[in-house]
Amino acid sequence: MSFQNPVFIPGPTNIPECLRKACDMPTIDHRSPLFGQILHPAREGVRKVLKSTSAEVFIFPSSGTGGWETALSNTLSAGDTVLAARNGMFSHRWIDMCQRHGLDVQIVETPWGEGLPADRYEEILSADKGHKIKAVLATHNETATGVKSDIAAVRRALDAAGHPALLFVDGVSSIASMDFRMDEWGVDVAVTGSQKGFMLSAGLAIVGFSPKAMEATKTAQLPRTFFDVHDMAKGYANNAYPYTPAVGLMNGLNESCKMLLTEGLENVFARHHRIAEGVRAAVGAWGLELCAASPEVYSDTVSAIRTPEGFNATDIVTHAAEKYGVAFGVGLGEVAGKVFRIGHLGSLTDVMTLSGIATAEMCMVDLGLDIQLGSGVAAAQDYYRGNGASAQQDAA
Amino acid sequence: MSFQNPVFIPGPTNIPECLRKACDMPTIDHRSPLFGQILHPAREGVRKVLKSTSAEVFIFPSSGTGGWETALSNTLSAGDTVLAARNGMFSHRWIDMCQRHGLDVQIVETPWGEGLPADRYEEILSADKGHKIKAVLATHNETATGVKSDIAAVRRALDAAGHPALLFVDGVSSIASMDFRMDEWGVDVAVTGSQKGFMLSAGLAIVGFSPKAMEATKTAQLPRTFFDVHDMAKGYANNAYPYTPAVGLMNGLNESCKMLLTEGLENVFARHHRIAEGVRAAVGAWGLELCAASPEVYSDTVSAIRTPEGFNATDIVTHAAEKYGVAFGVGLGEVAGKVFRIGHLGSLTDVMTLSGIATAEMCMVDLGLDIQLGSGVAAAQDYYRGNGASAQQDAA
Amino acid sequence: MSFQNPVFIPGPTNIPECLRKACDMPTIDHRSPLFGQILHPAREGVRKVLKSTSAEVFIFPSSGTGGWETALSNTLSAGDTVLAARNGMFSHRWIDMCQRHGLDVQIVETPWGEGLPADRYEEILSADKGHKIKAVLATHNETATGVKSDIAAVRRALDAAGHPALLFVDGVSSIASMDFRMDEWGVDVAVTGSQKGFMLSAGLAIVGFSPKAMEATKTAQLPRTFFDVHDMAKGYANNAYPYTPAVGLMNGLNESCKMLLTEGLENVFARHHRIAEGVRAAVGAWGLELCAASPEVYSDTVSAIRTPEGFNATDIVTHAAEKYGVAFGVGLGEVAGKVFRIGHLGSLTDVMTLSGIATAEMCMVDLGLDIQLGSGVAAAQDYYRGNGASAQQDAA
Amino acid sequence: MSFQNPVFIPGPTNIPECLRKACDMPTIDHRSPLFGQILHPAREGVRKVLKSTSAEVFIFPSSGTGGWETALSNTLSAGDTVLAARNGMFSHRWIDMCQRHGLDVQIVETPWGEGLPADRYEEILSADKGHKIKAVLATHNETATGVKSDIAAVRRALDAAGHPALLFVDGVSSIASMDFRMDEWGVDVAVTGSQKGFMLSAGLAIVGFSPKAMEATKTAQLPRTFFDVHDMAKGYANNAYPYTPAVGLMNGLNESCKMLLTEGLENVFARHHRIAEGVRAAVGAWGLELCAASPEVYSDTVSAIRTPEGFNATDIVTHAAEKYGVAFGVGLGEVAGKVFRIGHLGSLTDVMTLSGIATAEMCMVDLGLDIQLGSGVAAAQDYYRGNGASAQQDAA
Repeated sequence: MSFQNPVFIPGPTNIPECLRKACDMPTIDHRSPLFGQILHPAREGVRKVLKSTSAEVFIFPSSGTGGWETALSNTLSAGDTVLAARNGMFSHRWIDMCQRHGLDVQIVETPWGEGLPADRYEEILSADKGHKIKAVLATHNETATGVKSDIAAVRRALDAAGHPALLFVDGVSSIASMDFRMDEWGVDVAVTGSQKGFMLSAGLAIVGFSPKAMEATKTAQLPRTFFDVHDMAKGYANNAYPYTPAVGLMNGLNESCKMLLTEGLENVFARHHRIAEGVRAAVGAWGLELCAASPEVYSDTVSAIRTPEGFNATDIVTHAAEKYGVAFGVGLGEVAGKVFRIGHLGSLTDVMTLSGIATAEMCMVDLGLDIQLGSGVAAAQDYYRGNGASAQQDAA
Repeated sequence: MSFQNPVFIPGPTNIPECLRKACDMPTIDHRSPLFGQILHPAREGVRKVLKSTSAEVFIFPSSGTGGWETALSNTLSAGDTVLAARNGMFSHRWIDMCQRHGLDVQIVETPWGEGLPADRYEEILSADKGHKIKAVLATHNETATGVKSDIAAVRRALDAAGHPALLFVDGVSSIASMDFRMDEWGVDVAVTGSQKGFMLSAGLAIVGFSPKAMEATKTAQLPRTFFDVHDMAKGYANNAYPYTPAVGLMNGLNESCKMLLTEGLENVFARHHRIAEGVRAAVGAWGLELCAASPEVYSDTVSAIRTPEGFNATDIVTHAAEKYGVAFGVGLGEVAGKVFRIGHLGSLTDVMTLSGIATAEMCMVDLGLDIQLGSGVAAAQDYYRGNGASAQQDAA
Repeated sequence: MSFQNPVFIPGPTNIPECLRKACDMPTIDHRSPLFGQILHPAREGVRKVLKSTSAEVFIFPSSGTGGWETALSNTLSAGDTVLAARNGMFSHRWIDMCQRHGLDVQIVETPWGEGLPADRYEEILSADKGHKIKAVLATHNETATGVKSDIAAVRRALDAAGHPALLFVDGVSSIASMDFRMDEWGVDVAVTGSQKGFMLSAGLAIVGFSPKAMEATKTAQLPRTFFDVHDMAKGYANNAYPYTPAVGLMNGLNESCKMLLTEGLENVFARHHRIAEGVRAAVGAWGLELCAASPEVYSDTVSAIRTPEGFNATDIVTHAAEKYGVAFGVGLGEVAGKVFRIGHLGSLTDVMTLSGIATAEMCMVDLGLDIQLGSGVAAAQDYYRGNGASAQQDAA
Repeated sequence: MSFQNPVFIPGPTNIPECLRKACDMPTIDHRSPLFGQILHPAREGVRKVLKSTSAEVFIFPSSGTGGWETALSNTLSAGDTVLAARNGMFSHRWIDMCQRHGLDVQIVETPWGEGLPADRYEEILSADKGHKIKAVLATHNETATGVKSDIAAVRRALDAAGHPALLFVDGVSSIASMDFRMDEWGVDVAVTGSQKGFMLSAGLAIVGFSPKAMEATKTAQLPRTFFDVHDMAKGYANNAYPYTPAVGLMNGLNESCKMLLTEGLENVFARHHRIAEGVRAAVGAWGLELCAASPEVYSDTVSAIRTPEGFNATDIVTHAAEKYGVAFGVGLGEVAGKVFRIGHLGSLTDVMTLSGIATAEMCMVDLGLDIQLGSGVAAAQDYYRGNGASAQQDAA
């Protein structure tokens, strides 16, 4: 197996050297006080990354999908209604999970490439006089389409409608990379994982529960044990877990939070934005378009790039892997074959990104697209040169 | 944090150098064929360790507890009856999980220290003419008491009663360390984790489903998404997962299986037995007794050692950690304060074990117990000398 | 410290993941048979890389400079005459070492940028009727100028002159990256280090002695103990060293040889050539010239690139490090300030190389040179696309 | 290869987790300022460990043997006289090196097992009215015999004789483990390596030169290039080396010094003493004797243990490796077959040491010696229990 080139999938990301070392830990007794010295700072670090002062943070040996299940099963009961928009593969899957857990999902179908329709949410919530809707689901960043949604607007919709529903946000591919404000936006459950902005391997579901969400757990009837937040909270109170924790990954998470907070969250976001802008400059130079419909929904963690009609975008991904040893993301669901994706989150520098852009160019030319070699690279170089790239950028 | 001394907790175990390196992997694309080269051999390796030819093996980023939930939620429906014995903390917790998922548990209370009462199972199953009991739960090795149960006898009980219930076995602290025969014993769901016999960090739930268990999934109504084995199977068919897998741990699992199978399962079991016998020789020399009631239930992975009346066994564990930097296990539940536990599974040599025995001795003397320094060590040395210890033993 | 971008210095090179793991070894007893299982295959592997069947390979915890000293001190005596050309910083330093060890060096001053003047060697050797010259020094690849010399021609010069002098070759930056034929070229001492073609950290001097060189050790009077090859040979005969060996690095060297031989030496050389050709295509597209005077002396491991008159080439190196976190090499000695160097040896892919080229471009533009962004990248992309780049290339 | 048991050779020692990680570094540019951030603190750390304020510290990619050569070749000229005692294999080898470098060694033959005869040194030095003796060699800790010598007494001998000779001390197996006072004892060159008290892999020669030793370099005529301290000093002044440094090991050395100084040198020495006392208690309980003639020369880093007449002590070492996978040291030179050695330096805890003692016991019983199992362990346990063992001891 060769590990020379960076990966450009939208997570798991490249892992910083120091985080690999933090995770690669000999066994310690997870019931000893030592473990508390990892657990509590890690939870506190995550809370800061969520920009929350009041959230309870829970960390499960699981994945983002497990985080979704944690949100639902701890706060809702079978038959409850939830409101959700479907504008990409990941919002689709969360909706599917709701249905499989016996929830009644009011789905707002939304074109893939567009953000969440906060105005439609407001109409529906305003119409729900009986407050049948118990929770609103919002995917902050649709990893499948490279589309960022406006969570503050969703909060405003709830407030405008005077609706008490809980607000659940999937921040798997946004948190720790793009601005996320749990308290300010009134998010009740924030869901993420270890393998995106936190730059670790997959293996942790990370969730934040607001006090209101914690309150909702008292009446929620969906069955749960592994993902039960009360068991988890009881464990934490004793420096422990209700079962065996993934200690090394937790240690990595603790270090990751330190890295992010030392760099400064705003700097982290600005770095992601700068790197993304370079990629977008390249896309423009190639004469291609993003799946994301307009600049205000451009994601700073992943770009889904539309290829010309009649061309199978997935070929780029296969070819890049086979010929150049570079991993990009394929299109999923509705946009399968229509887009390929460049992940540009986590531990990445301008210089690494340029190698991804250069590879995409070679692949497109190899496969017969009318792209000029070096054109995207030049556009990105031009952007990076002028926008404060610095070696220090990469605290990672 | 100091990592010099081995740990003697009943899992996670000491991790072999080569498995740490196998887990500490740079990011690869988990949707690329590369991942299949890890996934499929890992599943095949686990199947061999389970001594099964027909089981479907599923591996979740989770823990043994998640494995329990996988067993229940994929095969049962709310209101179903299951039969279970409670003879320790872990069987207790699995029962609790059943109840929280709306199952009706027929509990056979069994003294802590004794094995599963297969005869009582047979009586109950024979009496269940209507086959209301859908599943029988069996904890192969009670980690809390150091008690091994006879799963073949449980199978015989089912057969004698002509009862079609599924047989679920918690093999978290037995599989890959003690003999386990999925096919021969007619086990329908076998549950384990990465952090015991597989000698890895915690973070994976590993389960095997028999064809009969797979059949049961078709009618099971308990809600499930994260732990759904059909989603998982569909993913595997495409070299992939329904969500992001814990690639490094999977790679470690693959290597772990190779190690175990190269050493030979029977050699692995013999090694665990030999090391355990040394510990038991020490316990005898100290004049103490095991929690396990009789030799046929002695566990080869963990020994729970009773301390004299009036003495708080937990003090040994605290003292060992504080004064000597060595981790033992405390007593849990009914036997809290009455026993301390020496874990002796996974990557361990006779020589390492002697250091654990020596530490326990020092602690007991420090805390005023009437134990002779060196006595347990001498008994264990005598056993190890004569029983084929060899440097090659430690393939790990 | 950030380690995200590849390095482009002419050694130490980027280290493959598997070699880092091979070097990162717990302590073993270096006097046990285990060590022999590392030592002997490592020596045998090196011998194959040298394309020799008869050489004695010695490995010292040292550096290439120590290898030079090993060559001299084991075969020569104070007052002996050696013949050497000075065409770069490294040939200069070896000459300096000769002088400091009391040798009389007949120096052929050669323009920096040109290869060794085999014809001048032949004249001098032919004129040395009394065979006062005991050894001829030849730097195979001048790392300072990116110039490769023709060692076969030096051998022909010796043969044409019928001269018995020993032939010492500094292959530090060629061996394991560019074709080297110890036996065919009649090399008597070949010198290299761990940190170039072998892709390891610095820390080992690696030398091969021909039978004729071994014979010369019997009469050599220069003082030596640490670098004494007889002590070393005596140690090897006992699976050991005359002092404590650098076991982890030796283990890495053993693995490195396996990697190189598995890939196939000719494939390794072709890979280096392809990557170098891409860099040279970029240099051409920039309108710049190499320090190396003509194509037949172009090095496949490092390119020294001349910058326009009046421009300080060292600024590129400083700027690249400070602004982009990328390491290039500065010019040394006579060409200080006149060239900057791109190292392109060891563990490197086309894709990584493109990021180095892109960085050099940005730096040159930042510093006011008239270079077009993307131009060098496009030239290299064009070359790589058409010349068999493949993901499998990077066995490393 | 199995790495489960600790090693008990007198170096290289067990390596702390954090030092392994510090050494396992990706490539950085060793000519960049980053390297200075490793180099200078490492040198300053070593100076503190040497208890010197004025020494120049030099670090070579080499071994302790290279350190000896550095001392000689930088300060002496062929034909110079040096004074040395031979009381073990390592003092013997240093003498041999002197002779091979053309020095005239006045040897004081001393029984193996005794310390340096400072009184004989004084007589000889007093008799050397013409100050022909240019340097006095002193092996602080004879690793072969487990004998510590009194360097302060050697200094007093020089002073009493009013003799200006330089004082060279081999502190390879003492420095960073046992008290060493470069300035107070007037040591002119202190020699050590990375693989003993510094707890790293072998690969670095570490030397300290007093101002007087630096002065001597100006007239020293022995040939030197690789080990030349002036080239090294010139490099250091530019954050660099005269050749490629072993960056990872240097980084490890820097961290090692931080660990040692954070623990406190006196605590480090006390820890070594305590662990050594436990081993000596075991030896006493076995009814055996140390090679070291009397308590004031007992080494705190290695114990050479005499076995009964007619018994081949080397068998213990072979047997321990083959049967138990544990490494001890054999006897060397005069005491080959008469002693075996337990190394107890570097990263070691009481608990680990007990496993070494227990193994030695098993081996001796296996091989027919009249030793009682558990006897040595009990004596060591008794000592460790009462002498402040603590988990915090092992900062390593």
